[in-house]
Amino acid sequence: MPADAVERQTAATPGALLASTLEKIKPADAAMLAEGRAYQGRLTKPIGALGVLEDVAVALTALAGTCPPPMPEPAAVALFAGDHGVTAQGVSAFPQEVTIQMVANFLAGGAAVNAFASQAGADVMVIDVGIAGEVPEQLVREGGPRLLRRRVRSGTADMTVEPAMTRTEALLAIETGITIADELVEDGYRCLLTGEMGIANTTPSAALIAAFTGAKAADVTGIGTGVDQPGWQRKVDAIDAALRLHRPDPSDPVGVLATVGGLEHAALAGLILGGAANRVPVILDGVIAGAAALVAAGIAGDCTAACVAGHRSFEPGHSIAMRHLGLTPLVDLGLRLGEATGALLALPLVKAGVRAMREMATFDSAGVSEKS
Amino acid sequence: MPADAVERQTAATPGALLASTLEKIKPADAAMLAEGRAYQGRLTKPIGALGVLEDVAVALTALAGTCPPPMPEPAAVALFAGDHGVTAQGVSAFPQEVTIQMVANFLAGGAAVNAFASQAGADVMVIDVGIAGEVPEQLVREGGPRLLRRRVRSGTADMTVEPAMTRTEALLAIETGITIADELVEDGYRCLLTGEMGIANTTPSAALIAAFTGAKAADVTGIGTGVDQPGWQRKVDAIDAALRLHRPDPSDPVGVLATVGGLEHAALAGLILGGAANRVPVILDGVIAGAAALVAAGIAGDCTAACVAGHRSFEPGHSIAMRHLGLTPLVDLGLRLGEATGALLALPLVKAGVRAMREMATFDSAGVSEKS
Repeated sequence: MPADAVERQTAATPGALLASTLEKIKPADAAMLAEGRAYQGRLTKPIGALGVLEDVAVALTALAGTCPPPMPEPAAVALFAGDHGVTAQGVSAFPQEVTIQMVANFLAGGAAVNAFASQAGADVMVIDVGIAGEVPEQLVREGGPRLLRRRVRSGTADMTVEPAMTRTEALLAIETGITIADELVEDGYRCLLTGEMGIANTTPSAALIAAFTGAKAADVTGIGTGVDQPGWQRKVDAIDAALRLHRPDPSDPVGVLATVGGLEHAALAGLILGGAANRVPVILDGVIAGAAALVAAGIAGDCTAACVAGHRSFEPGHSIAMRHLGLTPLVDLGLRLGEATGALLALPLVKAGVRAMREMATFDSAGVSEKS
Repeated sequence: MPADAVERQTAATPGALLASTLEKIKPADAAMLAEGRAYQGRLTKPIGALGVLEDVAVALTALAGTCPPPMPEPAAVALFAGDHGVTAQGVSAFPQEVTIQMVANFLAGGAAVNAFASQAGADVMVIDVGIAGEVPEQLVREGGPRLLRRRVRSGTADMTVEPAMTRTEALLAIETGITIADELVEDGYRCLLTGEMGIANTTPSAALIAAFTGAKAADVTGIGTGVDQPGWQRKVDAIDAALRLHRPDPSDPVGVLATVGGLEHAALAGLILGGAANRVPVILDGVIAGAAALVAAGIAGDCTAACVAGHRSFEPGHSIAMRHLGLTPLVDLGLRLGEATGALLALPLVKAGVRAMREMATFDSAGVSEKS
């Protein structure tokens, strides 16, 4: 465990920040939901004509407690990077070194997340919560994304032979995510987007989804970055082996996370809980975020009131996770890249829904005849 | 017919601009498609991981003839307004006067199209191509959307008793749309979005879709702005009556348009043809644009190479039109508002796809290991 994490661990009891965060998470306010819905009915459009975007804007009304809600901006992507011991089971099409190479690519501005963030007007920060190797100092570039070194441990253990991490490490990684959410809100951000990088991380994602939803490994496992059929079978076998070994109990979400999850999953769960505690919307990316949201919702079910499902991943486990959480993804374009790309595509849609509510005239104010 | 239209009609032979425009429309360049596809494979992401957005960016590569393609910006919404004689058949939940009231709302900046355009960074211009009443001069506001007075006739005739317009009027309205496309490209716009306003215009849209695809009226007719069941039946009856009366022949697309279409449909068909002739992408909004695209594709099938289907409308006829055209909508959020709202939601997605292609590093340049 690096010095940084030890210091944090001794500075506060693991679990104390999580406990104080949970006290702030509340269910959606029914009166504000009704007020938002009624306000939608006065805008110069047929009732319901903006479809799902009306639902999103009403949900954000309840989250913020003001009608219309504030614009979800500025927005920040918290991109957590971690490595996975289960890579040893041959579950990825790419070697583990690609995690650091892609972090370098993020910091240099050459990845999809950079292009999409630039398009959507969001800032990106990369957080090393659990990379296995050394991330060179010189990767950080002036004016580029920030790199935050908050490593809890250097990659997880192989879940097919031992718990991916200890319970304390899982708690520390969750609290790292909460801390990032708190810091971002403190810095003025009003919308958080989940991002991640970690070679092999669709495998622990599928294991988490199977553990929380009761689905079979084969039903929640996809091709990830593009494994072939034998690679897909190795993923399913690894997940089955881990589930048999640890028998994770969904009523103990931190235990599930510690045995079959990843450090970026833990941090993302913390980011979601932290966003909900701060009443700031969290736009979820794809299957890794979906798995993390199951952890977060297992800890505090009301946190989903702060969640917007950004896109529907190509990974089959993602749709199962979303259904379990009662979330409907906004974008469905067959993406399977991760990083935060799906969440970033959803950001302008969420903004459009809120902006319509904030800027549109009412039938009265515009002098438009109402429906006969 | 207003003086403006008469002047245009005498200035050039109706059909001459259309004919010269058609000469410029070419099919997608197979070599450029292949070059775009190969380029996508070198970017630092698994092949195909950006899903449909890769297809869109590759299509725009072929359209522009450069790899990567230029950013589709600045973007302009051409919002054509017209009225419909078929309103007399009780097919809309709103009175006809709402067309002008909503034009006033667009010019005042209080409509959904204004909020969405502001969010997407697009300019809006409103073109009166066929409103029935007088549009007061004082509606235009400094700094707000422009109003262009290009009226071909003051609303269509009731298609259930006579042709909606003459063949010459249909041609003039198509050429109005082409002229708008030419002017916008001349002004520097590099992406055109279809917009429309016209109380009752889902009814002629459904009639056009039925005529071009052979679908039954009941299968292509929806609730529009929110008619009740008897209102829906009146729409179906009106469409059936018009189709029985005119027996429109899809091999004569201008004839179909003249008998059962609208002036904004004609202008939108012209905008699509003009965009294709200028090799500039045209993002289609919902069912009215879809019906207009059937007219445009009936005139010049290759124009669909310039089309991006913005969103899937709640109207059932829209999906039938898209399938007929071979287009897959990007956004599917249950919108049924029109104006250009669906196209505006798609604009940042299209931009993200192109930006990824323009700004992402390649595996070589970023030093990222390729798939094993």
